[in-house]
Amino acid sequence: MAVVRQNIERASLEVADALLEAGVATVHEAQGRTGLMAPFIRPVWQGSRSAGTAVTVSLPPGDNWMLHVAVEQCRQGDILVASPTSASDAGYFGELLAVSLSARGVRGIVIEAGVRDVDDLEKLGFPAWSKFISAQGTVKSELGDVNFPLVCGNQLVNPGDIVVADSDGVCVVDRRREGDVLERANARLAKEDRTRDALASGALGLDYYDMRARLKEKGLKYE
Amino acid sequence: MAVVRQNIERASLEVADALLEAGVATVHEAQGRTGLMAPFIRPVWQGSRSAGTAVTVSLPPGDNWMLHVAVEQCRQGDILVASPTSASDAGYFGELLAVSLSARGVRGIVIEAGVRDVDDLEKLGFPAWSKFISAQGTVKSELGDVNFPLVCGNQLVNPGDIVVADSDGVCVVDRRREGDVLERANARLAKEDRTRDALASGALGLDYYDMRARLKEKGLKYE
Amino acid sequence: MAVVRQNIERASLEVADALLEAGVATVHEAQGRTGLMAPFIRPVWQGSRSAGTAVTVSLPPGDNWMLHVAVEQCRQGDILVASPTSASDAGYFGELLAVSLSARGVRGIVIEAGVRDVDDLEKLGFPAWSKFISAQGTVKSELGDVNFPLVCGNQLVNPGDIVVADSDGVCVVDRRREGDVLERANARLAKEDRTRDALASGALGLDYYDMRARLKEKGLKYE
Amino acid sequence: MAVVRQNIERASLEVADALLEAGVATVHEAQGRTGLMAPFIRPVWQGSRSAGTAVTVSLPPGDNWMLHVAVEQCRQGDILVASPTSASDAGYFGELLAVSLSARGVRGIVIEAGVRDVDDLEKLGFPAWSKFISAQGTVKSELGDVNFPLVCGNQLVNPGDIVVADSDGVCVVDRRREGDVLERANARLAKEDRTRDALASGALGLDYYDMRARLKEKGLKYE
Amino acid sequence: MAVVRQNIERASLEVADALLEAGVATVHEAQGRTGLMAPFIRPVWQGSRSAGTAVTVSLPPGDNWMLHVAVEQCRQGDILVASPTSASDAGYFGELLAVSLSARGVRGIVIEAGVRDVDDLEKLGFPAWSKFISAQGTVKSELGDVNFPLVCGNQLVNPGDIVVADSDGVCVVDRRREGDVLERANARLAKEDRTRDALASGALGLDYYDMRARLKEKGLKYE
Amino acid sequence: MAVVRQNIERASLEVADALLEAGVATVHEAQGRTGLMAPFIRPVWQGSRSAGTAVTVSLPPGDNWMLHVAVEQCRQGDILVASPTSASDAGYFGELLAVSLSARGVRGIVIEAGVRDVDDLEKLGFPAWSKFISAQGTVKSELGDVNFPLVCGNQLVNPGDIVVADSDGVCVVDRRREGDVLERANARLAKEDRTRDALASGALGLDYYDMRARLKEKGLKYE
Repeated sequence: MAVVRQNIERASLEVADALLEAGVATVHEAQGRTGLMAPFIRPVWQGSRSAGTAVTVSLPPGDNWMLHVAVEQCRQGDILVASPTSASDAGYFGELLAVSLSARGVRGIVIEAGVRDVDDLEKLGFPAWSKFISAQGTVKSELGDVNFPLVCGNQLVNPGDIVVADSDGVCVVDRRREGDVLERANARLAKEDRTRDALASGALGLDYYDMRARLKEKGLKYE
Repeated sequence: MAVVRQNIERASLEVADALLEAGVATVHEAQGRTGLMAPFIRPVWQGSRSAGTAVTVSLPPGDNWMLHVAVEQCRQGDILVASPTSASDAGYFGELLAVSLSARGVRGIVIEAGVRDVDDLEKLGFPAWSKFISAQGTVKSELGDVNFPLVCGNQLVNPGDIVVADSDGVCVVDRRREGDVLERANARLAKEDRTRDALASGALGLDYYDMRARLKEKGLKYE
Repeated sequence: MAVVRQNIERASLEVADALLEAGVATVHEAQGRTGLMAPFIRPVWQGSRSAGTAVTVSLPPGDNWMLHVAVEQCRQGDILVASPTSASDAGYFGELLAVSLSARGVRGIVIEAGVRDVDDLEKLGFPAWSKFISAQGTVKSELGDVNFPLVCGNQLVNPGDIVVADSDGVCVVDRRREGDVLERANARLAKEDRTRDALASGALGLDYYDMRARLKEKGLKYE
Repeated sequence: MAVVRQNIERASLEVADALLEAGVATVHEAQGRTGLMAPFIRPVWQGSRSAGTAVTVSLPPGDNWMLHVAVEQCRQGDILVASPTSASDAGYFGELLAVSLSARGVRGIVIEAGVRDVDDLEKLGFPAWSKFISAQGTVKSELGDVNFPLVCGNQLVNPGDIVVADSDGVCVVDRRREGDVLERANARLAKEDRTRDALASGALGLDYYDMRARLKEKGLKYE
Repeated sequence: MAVVRQNIERASLEVADALLEAGVATVHEAQGRTGLMAPFIRPVWQGSRSAGTAVTVSLPPGDNWMLHVAVEQCRQGDILVASPTSASDAGYFGELLAVSLSARGVRGIVIEAGVRDVDDLEKLGFPAWSKFISAQGTVKSELGDVNFPLVCGNQLVNPGDIVVADSDGVCVVDRRREGDVLERANARLAKEDRTRDALASGALGLDYYDMRARLKEKGLKYE
Repeated sequence: MAVVRQNIERASLEVADALLEAGVATVHEAQGRTGLMAPFIRPVWQGSRSAGTAVTVSLPPGDNWMLHVAVEQCRQGDILVASPTSASDAGYFGELLAVSLSARGVRGIVIEAGVRDVDDLEKLGFPAWSKFISAQGTVKSELGDVNFPLVCGNQLVNPGDIVVADSDGVCVVDRRREGDVLERANARLAKEDRTRDALASGALGLDYYDMRARLKEKGLKYE
């Protein structure tokens, strides 16, 4: 359609920060095991870790023109989420775009395609998650859309949603559920702390989670 | 079948330790180039390195209940080896299970599926090899078997076999051949030391391994 | 054919060194977005970075005999480029061959197959790029060719071409175009420096690259 | 969430029928090259060809219980669209479910997982598109959702949308744009008829589409 | 090891024939959802359908010498099951070997590698399942084993086991369970006949399988 | 570079026809097991079978403009060979281009990307081999080259080379070796006829090829 939506509602950055503390695995659990991108979306450099509000952009195959359009729509606290309209392993994103996004306070990029200048991104400390690492150049020739619902890593991302990303992958949190998810994530963390202590002291999950009766009922046999 | 075998014979941990010294590549060579898992089984964090005796567990797709059952069957020096009964990239294993296994002296996990809490596993120093990294949650609903022969990474693993794992991948050593394999691995290491010295001094493999006549006979031509 | 070509013309090592300074992404751009190997060719250890002149070798599946033949054809400044004649994930290359190549001043290996002894390669500081990491052993039984045109990572490599390789991947530079490519790479670097400064100060790519008129003409709409 | 939405608005079956006449490639073009599922979604038997209105269902990995729930929500003219909540190659769907759907007038299934009883489906003439063919059994243990927005084959499918599927793959048409898409598809078909006649008579696309000037301007050179 | 086991015990061909009647999906269910090879093992030509007793052979990568050795070990009613010792997409098997196996009454081949002469195999009516179709030639240079336990398509195959293969894939039946599996398969078929009739008459699985109460208890909600 | 080479030397169509008679597998063997494209290049419709002289074209990702340029360079007996400059699964080629190529006597297309209108291509009888089947549309925006050396399916294709393609895949024959390859292919066919007769009468390959002594010498043992 070649349309840029300029006014989107964004989730709270405080919630994003708190969810990053909890981590991708916990957030994914806290919202009922939804929102997790497919495992082919991986951090580009070890230690990438970030959370923010999604600005979404669709990209023609091998064409990164719309990334430049999207930069202008980003502001402090955003994470850029990008997908090609058909599969591509080209290197859409590199150091110069990272410098530009950093200058605007953007917190990272998630892209279902290739990223390049990996060493520079790490030096800049600009977090990135992608499907490929590739130096393959792109053209600036065709249009896409900014801030429309987008499928990235098999998940639907709406503009303004919270994106939480770490070594485990990337999870999308629906903007309208942010408070609820945060509350559940915190509850989960507290519970995990207690469980960790018990297990570290040698308690068995079979006992701690009270599983033995159900296992027996289900038919488990010991020889 | 939903059966847990409780008494298995285990290989020697001294042999496992010695084989880890030799490393996966040497062990694989020493036992006639057998036992190496497919290259899609990779260390979850850089520097993972371990050897021990296999406790095997089969897992329903997207269901990690049996991991909790398997924990109880593990003891000091074991490595847990797990495969789903049909392909799955879900995140079956994470920090809490690692804490529990660590408390029992377990030395690592090898799983033909996904692992999560990557950063926590590295902080814990709990070695893990998997096919995927994924935070995707699992349920606790269906049963599998513990300590039956299992195919993992395209290799047959019998309970009690030695598992050696490092940056190169994972190799399984038949419990009944452990002494023989260790002897051959040590012989191989000694030979490699001599070869390394020769090659480092500039000797050519063509000469050192005496290959020129065979190459000529086979028909190799120089222009 | 089983032929070893002994006299090949090589590109300049000074140019190779200078192109490595520019990096794979810039070199690939400087020669009109050609020569970049497919993204499945990845550095074997983090920080691998090298450039030199190509010695090419074709390998039977699961058979690394010709690597030993190729070593003799390598000299100071070369990079060994290897492909199997049909797909293989075996571990053709490891520490001992790296020691031998190092003793001859060879700067690295690029192979569309598997590499093993990853930790040793890193300790040696011997740079390597491969499609797989695998300890799977190979035999020494069949022949291939040395210093013939070779397809590696979907790119044609001629013996003597420059190979530039870093974290972004591997790029091949036609020996006959080396001067031209270097000139363009340097021009590109200078331009990138100016652009980086502008973008870091907050300039938008849309303005800096003067894209707004073309985007409008192409039909981009803002809501 | 484990919710079944019972009342959804459906697109027109007359439009679905007409779009099937046009075929997937034309429909995809007619709606601006959007909506096409990824090419890994393939017809299960040669000649599968269908169009209808989407009933969507999410499935736990290796668990097809919700397919039985979804059957009841289907009516004459529907196509069932299913995705697992994490990747699975299990055989969720086979002959008995096809018999049940056929009895309700359902026109086919599209599933990002495995299908079995391939020969029976062909004999029944029940069209199916899937990512895998697999006899791997599933359990009936966990819940999913029916008639919520679903990502299948990397595309967003809303319940009631039109699904058009043939040998080329599967395309989703937004229910709210059905009239517009049909009109454009028909216009496109008419234009293709004229073009086909011209090209069959030997006209070159370069002339028929009037491309020569633009190619020259863009810099194409002839030697 | 390079050993050929000449005397193996074979399952009953009558049972194999009866299980083929039931089909791969039913057999896999009848033995508790075990034994099914991974879905990448596909019929080489449409309509391939066979069952028999397994003769197993391991193959060096890109080397089909051992297939010739294995032929001699095959007899009337056998199916040859082959895997390379490291992954290979070479074309190990073609028309001449099929002619030779046919002359001995062999009923098909299952191979985790490539097959060639596809059209000839279909004309011969020789059933084949493989991971790849490839004309890539192989050498005759290195040894493997015949009639040892083998991993093929991620499943363990013991010599003499029953192999059942059709359009849905390939399933291995443990020789020692053949009678039991046949009985269960037949029971399953009878039950499926009744279910088919009920569903074809419009009964819902939800009612026929009596699922409504369990779904409600599990928490399914209708809107 | 955006250059079209208009005058290329072509191999003989008589040789191409004769090689097609021999088939891909035999041609590949006859030229020393070289030239075979990777097995991911598959016939688009069953029964595709063709041979001719290569016109090569490189394509920007998701952009099929150059196919229209290439059509004009094709003549009676050619096969169009196309590769994207970076990986793409888009549907570059469909019915209208096939009509246009047919009108010029072109014998088929081989493309390392996607093809659409599969049913129409089959009806037209226009042979096609591709990596993907996909209806994904392409743009007409960027340039490539016609009749330069091209890598397709991991093989180097020079313009004017012979391309032989059938159900087994696609093989490239160097124009300068066509006579030699034909001679060897015919010799091979004659030999295969004799072998087929012997094997059909029950001779074992072990005897017919006189393998027993070499196997024994290599160390094969029978139990």
